[in-house]
Amino acid sequence: MSADRRQASQHFERLLQTRNREEFLAQLAPHFDEAPPKVPGGSHVSDEALQRRWELLSAPESRRELLDADTDARKESFKRNIEHFIGTVKVPVGLAGPLRINGLFARGDFYVPLATTEAALVASYSRGSHLLTEAGGCTSALLNEGVCRAPGYAFPNVREAGMFVLWATEHVEDFRRVAEATTRFGKLNDMRITLEGNHAYLCFEFYTADASGQNMVTLATEAICEYIEQHCPIRPQYHFIEANLSGDKKASAQSFLLVRGRKVSAEAVLPAELVQKRLRTTPEHMVNFWRMCAMGGIQSGTLGIQGHFANGLAALYLACGQDVACVAESAVGVTRFEVIEGGDLYASVTLPNIMVGTVGGGTGLPSQKACLEIMRLAGAGKAQALAEVCGGLCLAGELSIMGAMCSGDFSRAHRLLARGKQAKKSDKAQGTADA
Amino acid sequence: MSADRRQASQHFERLLQTRNREEFLAQLAPHFDEAPPKVPGGSHVSDEALQRRWELLSAPESRRELLDADTDARKESFKRNIEHFIGTVKVPVGLAGPLRINGLFARGDFYVPLATTEAALVASYSRGSHLLTEAGGCTSALLNEGVCRAPGYAFPNVREAGMFVLWATEHVEDFRRVAEATTRFGKLNDMRITLEGNHAYLCFEFYTADASGQNMVTLATEAICEYIEQHCPIRPQYHFIEANLSGDKKASAQSFLLVRGRKVSAEAVLPAELVQKRLRTTPEHMVNFWRMCAMGGIQSGTLGIQGHFANGLAALYLACGQDVACVAESAVGVTRFEVIEGGDLYASVTLPNIMVGTVGGGTGLPSQKACLEIMRLAGAGKAQALAEVCGGLCLAGELSIMGAMCSGDFSRAHRLLARGKQAKKSDKAQGTADA
Amino acid sequence: MSADRRQASQHFERLLQTRNREEFLAQLAPHFDEAPPKVPGGSHVSDEALQRRWELLSAPESRRELLDADTDARKESFKRNIEHFIGTVKVPVGLAGPLRINGLFARGDFYVPLATTEAALVASYSRGSHLLTEAGGCTSALLNEGVCRAPGYAFPNVREAGMFVLWATEHVEDFRRVAEATTRFGKLNDMRITLEGNHAYLCFEFYTADASGQNMVTLATEAICEYIEQHCPIRPQYHFIEANLSGDKKASAQSFLLVRGRKVSAEAVLPAELVQKRLRTTPEHMVNFWRMCAMGGIQSGTLGIQGHFANGLAALYLACGQDVACVAESAVGVTRFEVIEGGDLYASVTLPNIMVGTVGGGTGLPSQKACLEIMRLAGAGKAQALAEVCGGLCLAGELSIMGAMCSGDFSRAHRLLARGKQAKKSDKAQGTADA
Amino acid sequence: MSADRRQASQHFERLLQTRNREEFLAQLAPHFDEAPPKVPGGSHVSDEALQRRWELLSAPESRRELLDADTDARKESFKRNIEHFIGTVKVPVGLAGPLRINGLFARGDFYVPLATTEAALVASYSRGSHLLTEAGGCTSALLNEGVCRAPGYAFPNVREAGMFVLWATEHVEDFRRVAEATTRFGKLNDMRITLEGNHAYLCFEFYTADASGQNMVTLATEAICEYIEQHCPIRPQYHFIEANLSGDKKASAQSFLLVRGRKVSAEAVLPAELVQKRLRTTPEHMVNFWRMCAMGGIQSGTLGIQGHFANGLAALYLACGQDVACVAESAVGVTRFEVIEGGDLYASVTLPNIMVGTVGGGTGLPSQKACLEIMRLAGAGKAQALAEVCGGLCLAGELSIMGAMCSGDFSRAHRLLARGKQAKKSDKAQGTADA
Repeated sequence: MSADRRQASQHFERLLQTRNREEFLAQLAPHFDEAPPKVPGGSHVSDEALQRRWELLSAPESRRELLDADTDARKESFKRNIEHFIGTVKVPVGLAGPLRINGLFARGDFYVPLATTEAALVASYSRGSHLLTEAGGCTSALLNEGVCRAPGYAFPNVREAGMFVLWATEHVEDFRRVAEATTRFGKLNDMRITLEGNHAYLCFEFYTADASGQNMVTLATEAICEYIEQHCPIRPQYHFIEANLSGDKKASAQSFLLVRGRKVSAEAVLPAELVQKRLRTTPEHMVNFWRMCAMGGIQSGTLGIQGHFANGLAALYLACGQDVACVAESAVGVTRFEVIEGGDLYASVTLPNIMVGTVGGGTGLPSQKACLEIMRLAGAGKAQALAEVCGGLCLAGELSIMGAMCSGDFSRAHRLLARGKQAKKSDKAQGTADA
Repeated sequence: MSADRRQASQHFERLLQTRNREEFLAQLAPHFDEAPPKVPGGSHVSDEALQRRWELLSAPESRRELLDADTDARKESFKRNIEHFIGTVKVPVGLAGPLRINGLFARGDFYVPLATTEAALVASYSRGSHLLTEAGGCTSALLNEGVCRAPGYAFPNVREAGMFVLWATEHVEDFRRVAEATTRFGKLNDMRITLEGNHAYLCFEFYTADASGQNMVTLATEAICEYIEQHCPIRPQYHFIEANLSGDKKASAQSFLLVRGRKVSAEAVLPAELVQKRLRTTPEHMVNFWRMCAMGGIQSGTLGIQGHFANGLAALYLACGQDVACVAESAVGVTRFEVIEGGDLYASVTLPNIMVGTVGGGTGLPSQKACLEIMRLAGAGKAQALAEVCGGLCLAGELSIMGAMCSGDFSRAHRLLARGKQAKKSDKAQGTADA
Repeated sequence: MSADRRQASQHFERLLQTRNREEFLAQLAPHFDEAPPKVPGGSHVSDEALQRRWELLSAPESRRELLDADTDARKESFKRNIEHFIGTVKVPVGLAGPLRINGLFARGDFYVPLATTEAALVASYSRGSHLLTEAGGCTSALLNEGVCRAPGYAFPNVREAGMFVLWATEHVEDFRRVAEATTRFGKLNDMRITLEGNHAYLCFEFYTADASGQNMVTLATEAICEYIEQHCPIRPQYHFIEANLSGDKKASAQSFLLVRGRKVSAEAVLPAELVQKRLRTTPEHMVNFWRMCAMGGIQSGTLGIQGHFANGLAALYLACGQDVACVAESAVGVTRFEVIEGGDLYASVTLPNIMVGTVGGGTGLPSQKACLEIMRLAGAGKAQALAEVCGGLCLAGELSIMGAMCSGDFSRAHRLLARGKQAKKSDKAQGTADA
Repeated sequence: MSADRRQASQHFERLLQTRNREEFLAQLAPHFDEAPPKVPGGSHVSDEALQRRWELLSAPESRRELLDADTDARKESFKRNIEHFIGTVKVPVGLAGPLRINGLFARGDFYVPLATTEAALVASYSRGSHLLTEAGGCTSALLNEGVCRAPGYAFPNVREAGMFVLWATEHVEDFRRVAEATTRFGKLNDMRITLEGNHAYLCFEFYTADASGQNMVTLATEAICEYIEQHCPIRPQYHFIEANLSGDKKASAQSFLLVRGRKVSAEAVLPAELVQKRLRTTPEHMVNFWRMCAMGGIQSGTLGIQGHFANGLAALYLACGQDVACVAESAVGVTRFEVIEGGDLYASVTLPNIMVGTVGGGTGLPSQKACLEIMRLAGAGKAQALAEVCGGLCLAGELSIMGAMCSGDFSRAHRLLARGKQAKKSDKAQGTADA
């Protein structure tokens, strides 16, 4: 716990109402009685493997829900994406939009499929999308792209680590050659170096074409590590192919400073009348909220400043077969609202670390591919456009939630209506969702 | 872009191979041609509403995948969780485990359903689970719980903001009364105060029982805001029910210092022989990796130090109807590995910000509830145990990935095998996945 | 190095122009030849001790400068504040002001002594002070105060760590008693708890009256640790009186969330005409700069958002005998500029972590005390007022530097004038200093 | 305040014991009565200017201390470094050492002058220095160097910002030419680009030779900004020569990732017997402390992981005429302790952001230059060596404080001795100081 002592005391009190200290200590201790069997069958999806797995669980109702007829019929389609398969979870998909994107790669009006179980999320993003579309759409520009892997090497001392780094700077072209031999599409963009005492990290930045690219860069970096092992006269005590400097699957300040995934800025100018008409507030008040949120975010020690990028990204990643765990790193960025000359609202979002692809990963699964196809963004040549849609969607979400906070609709509705599900839902549909 | 000039130049070059500057500028400018229709029907899930939505898309194949017969048959079940419903996305679920948890609330051997489209993830978590189970299970303890909302109030100057805060400190019992009238289960634990110039933030911390609680605390905080509006003699210029100080849906340093969601530590002692047998490495080498990862994480500006909490959390949240967007905040924490006396490995994870519930949100949807039921964790009285399972799962994942990095299996396999899908998969099954 | 490969290559090239690899490696290796003598005499300041120290150095000119007649005559006054004393360094002091402070504790017009070797710093802070004074002074309010120490305890497992924490929550009154017995003025305010696996941190927050308080809280916390050692039935494997959780001497996000040192907000409303007249810019443009700086700071991963708090704090701390190393933690905070109704400029700074005292440390040394006396802030009962002066000074500095950036004076002067010292100095006197 | 409500209530109570609310509100309000005169005479140091300044203060005793005969006699020497000069503050200087540095640039045994008013600091650093020297000295290697300025440009939209950036990437050689024309020694190393919506930041990285370089890079960057103003066809709405992206005078995550100032790693291997003999502890226990401190630092949201870099840096910067405000940015880095094969202790520190020079700033002032000369590090060609001394000194300080924490001397002394100044001092001389 990180708690003041009152919280800690309350927590202990709540606990000790149900059991005494000794009972809890006994519960928490290791238990060496025999364990039930391991899940059988690895990545096999045969009827027999499924049967054996479900027998472990004795949960026939769960089986019916997860292993419905449709899932059962197409279980082969999942076998490259999962191990110990037992069925599918069904996540409802709603459409937000139309969202007009004026991008370098994405152009036109998108109906964006969002998968979520959180009420009001789709409504909120949809409201923001309409607003942007009515304002001529949002500009969304891919500004950079690349994915890195950062193997770490340990030496007895900084002298050898330094000699290693010197050697590495002299062999970048060799690294490029062996790395690019592992991939049809990836390119080694650059190498960065971090020396910390007797530890040396080499950070390899790759261009990954239409793949999100984590696997591609792992394979390519392995080839480099192997080359180093075979050719470098300075021998490390040990090394690891990734030493946690790449920011993989976690929020990091580094996102803003180096390239990771795809960086997108999306922006729009919203006329004051439109803000008034659709969000029932003013550009000035939107900026009041933005400013207070910026100060609040800074004081809570967040990385970047934004409202709820995670909501839109998670729903879009999920619908479209992206790696949802990457929301941890992608939901870092900045939102900026300004009143500009003439009294209109300038709004922008910048996401430095969007991890999306349109080939590989879950993008080929049937329903995920169906979602990509709704946007005409399935397959090769579409990843950059998908990243631009992510940017535009996040901008829509920021406008919608900030508008709802500003308009007072949220509070007013709660005062007027009974606090039933219906009230809650319609309030939330104003855009505040649970974000 | 945040890029060195070479990256920027390369990016421009790639762009300008396909279009010239003027064409790109034209693309990025606002476009005011007529937009296609809005998505009709709000949160209705009638056949007609669905039909009208799919007509917008002219994507019959996508329709078949998303709106399969099974989904169509039970579309009513989704209507409280989505708007503009068009179908469901099917995410494959695999079983990890058995994972033995010795918790305050969770006890026994769990088969953990994980929904993901990323190959090797389930295998990796499963391997770590077996290791823990073989070692007597992992201790996993809920250390604190609570969720906060932080309304912000703006005044003309710090004098009035200070008077407001003084008034608020004198009315905490009133706040408690009105807040707790909005909820059967929630309790107002405490109020914190942040004064920044003429801005005052009140941070209300609630106990939320078995709900994840974001909606509950929003409603309760609204009641407090309303009370303030009616009774406080010091009038703000404006206020917002949430001013971005609560850390909602984003990674923040605050997670470690205040209560947000449920805080869990999970730990285990792994005998050296077991580490050798199952992970083909030594406790010492695991600590070498942990240390280098800690230094790498610190230098990349991450919050906390861990390997890939996001992978396990996202997969479990998704399977079990949790709010997947909360991975952005939940995937912050610390992992610690030590060689202890006798040469065994002590391993622990601490996650200060797990956002889970077993009632509300998506937990009642058919397949999500089915996943909770596999673990016997559906419904009231189970949220704390679910949080402890999250902790144990993350510990399993850390052990597995770090073991794979240490054993060299990863690299060796790549050198020996052709680089086909099969090789990649079996390597990844060693636990390294793409995490 | 953290560098792209070009920087690294350049660095190696520069190095290898002067020596070859082997020579460098030889230089960097350990050298075991005999070392010169240790510095003799401990904290003695006798003529003999000084003579022996200077004999080590064979630097007669340095001796004349550091051990001037005046320093030699009053060397006794330094003996409680230094070891291995050899003389004094003389840092020029300039006066900024008058700075009108309307505080809870500090009231009136202050001439603030600033010690620095950086040209233009005093001029810049002085300009900002005049501006504030002309606007009726700045409100500066002490919002909180306290200093903490955070001993850490290690146990075999989380069970024992938890039992320890439970015991600690039950003994806070004992901790208070033994802690307060060590100090005439200090009070134990509260205890916070952080549990991370088998590590338990207790964070003791003290009220330290007029002292900066680090020593006071160390002594008081030792008494608590001793009490724990004697009375607690749960025995740690080891413990440390401070385990780096208190934020001592380093910038941390925690500053904003918990109490550390003294927290002050200072604010003022600057009429538009005054901004125009004194800073030759407009409130709107000041806000343009503030906004861009906020976004820049966020993207560079800074804690808080401000311009150059460190400049004013370092100069004031140094002049007034404060612990200058604490600038590392104190120079974290937020600055906020807004255009308010009527077009005037609202400006505020909030510093959550000011480490100042008016008794103890260097505050009793002759010239340092002289600086405090210039402000009538020497001795007991003045620390809170000194903290409020720090707040006001930082606000003056933010206004001045931001004004200089906005007015374009900086650039214009450089274009017009020769680039001699004079030009540089007068430009910088516009307030940009080296900040 | 950021406080729980009890802290807030206590604070209000303490306040309201002395005055009532109305009195406080009156105090905090603006006051428009006439202000005392401004400080006269600008940067003049004539007798008359000094006389007029001291007349403002009516503090004859302070005058005697600050404007002693020696200071008065050499007041001319300060005039380029201060405005509104009134005298000097005398900071005692102690010698730490000998400290053996095996560096790329610094070689030999250094007696390091440290200026501080904090008892025990010199003793602690001296103890660590002896330890390192006895172990063959510490390797200290300059790994990178450079200083940046980051002007920011605002445009109506991202399209124009992008065109501007494209233009900038095409004119780097022009930027280099005009920048390098402003300086005899500085070189433009590189340009980085950050695009955030319609804001474009150009980050210019310079090599600054022996100067700390902030002024040099400001002048050089102004020349670039002027060139842009004259030649760039894409006109910004406004721009600023620095938009807070460079990390100047503040702790930032960026320090680890980009070049700022001079980056140094210092390391040593300490034989177990030496650790036992000099620090009365074991390498294993030092690592226990390091590990717990790492976890504590991470959980408190600090940048980097270290003990008290700020103490040594502040004292050395102050003695040697460096910009003490830069401690805010320089005191960020990492410390790493490991037990290596054979049971010895490997210890390293890495400071990515040391801001030192041996020409310019305060380095030419008499007593500051005297300190540099004690180390033979005054003047051209010495800045890199000075940075390496900083690294070695910080390593000495980390070893000493961690040793004191581990040995238990600290606590034992307090139990045995009366709690007089003497006890306190001798304990602290064990190395714990107030750090």
